Amino acid sequence: MSNYGRFLSVEGGEGVGKSTQIVALADAIRKAGFDVVITREPGGTPGAEAIRQLLLGGSAERWLPRAEALLFAAARSDHVERLIKPALESGKWVISDRFLDSSRAYQGGGSGISDTDILALHKIGSMGLLPDRTLVLRLDTHEAIERAAVRDAGQADRIQGRSTGFHSDVDSAFVSFAEVEARVRLVDASGTLQAVTSRLLSEIADLLVAS
Amino acid sequence: MSNYGRFLSVEGGEGVGKSTQIVALADAIRKAGFDVVITREPGGTPGAEAIRQLLLGGSAERWLPRAEALLFAAARSDHVERLIKPALESGKWVISDRFLDSSRAYQGGGSGISDTDILALHKIGSMGLLPDRTLVLRLDTHEAIERAAVRDAGQADRIQGRSTGFHSDVDSAFVSFAEVEARVRLVDASGTLQAVTSRLLSEIADLLVAS
Repeated sequence: MSNYGRFLSVEGGEGVGKSTQIVALADAIRKAGFDVVITREPGGTPGAEAIRQLLLGGSAERWLPRAEALLFAAARSDHVERLIKPALESGKWVISDRFLDSSRAYQGGGSGISDTDILALHKIGSMGLLPDRTLVLRLDTHEAIERAAVRDAGQADRIQGRSTGFHSDVDSAFVSFAEVEARVRLVDASGTLQAVTSRLLSEIADLLVAS
Repeated sequence: MSNYGRFLSVEGGEGVGKSTQIVALADAIRKAGFDVVITREPGGTPGAEAIRQLLLGGSAERWLPRAEALLFAAARSDHVERLIKPALESGKWVISDRFLDSSRAYQGGGSGISDTDILALHKIGSMGLLPDRTLVLRLDTHEAIERAAVRDAGQADRIQGRSTGFHSDVDSAFVSFAEVEARVRLVDASGTLQAVTSRLLSEIADLLVAS
């Protein structure tokens, strides 16, 4: 038995059911005998939540891409140093609703700052910490946007408010990460809640056994 | 005549008279026929001022050094892209009360994040923009802290509240920058207001002539 917890991130565009699936995933991992901490980005700690307010409030033009990338990296640094690392070191599993790959997909894919720069910021801010596994929930882009539009009617934040073309670029970015990095798994988010949870669990079965 | 303005930063610990000297310096440059914009860090633009509130408020432990360095770089990115670069491009001179070298001295010198990391953040956030000249006002550290203590009685911010040893390390950092980088000039801040202003002007005389 390792004394170190496992770190999972769950990614995917708006409307793919991330929040619901994270709760189901945590339940299943707890039943396997582990403590689980659920968190989210940007946010997760008081400092990072304060930065989240700066990032998601205001007009679409409030931040240029470079400042935005630095603010996400600052929030992530606080989150990693004060919540994620201590939890993992105490043997807990951590599931984060979004992590580094969201920055890479949303800022790097959609807004023009390079993936190399985002990874450099992550190295400086968070010692380059990567999840043990990253689960990317995917739906047909139009279906996902319709779901999100129903849920968030009238209250989209700065980033949700961007165009369909932007969200399609974001999905392409996640696909390209999965092609190169074994930790990143693409998971079909269509079908019943239980069917999707089963797919997620099959992607972390080796981690549950090895821990 | 160049159509591009000049960029000056004024640095130095608390209590060396930076604010007063910046006003006097701007007056002298205006008399030489130039438009001058006075600004400050962290801050200078609405976005950067919002980040300034996060940086200077709260307890000394509010931010760990990595997150703090990223937040300063984010504020600087907004400041450079939205105020400093446009002003320089329109032919104005810019005088900033603190700039990159404060991050290098306060975070790099005093708090354990490396100078290399801070310069990497500056390259990503602000395309590595350096001042044409950096004027470091210096007083004996104890004299400066006494001056600042009288001025700020009971209202020191997170960074002013640090120890004398910390402020002495900061001064050593500025001295080391001046040894390596010709743009950085150490200026004696003792004596009358006029005497100090004269010393500052002699350090930028070549820029005034060349512009």
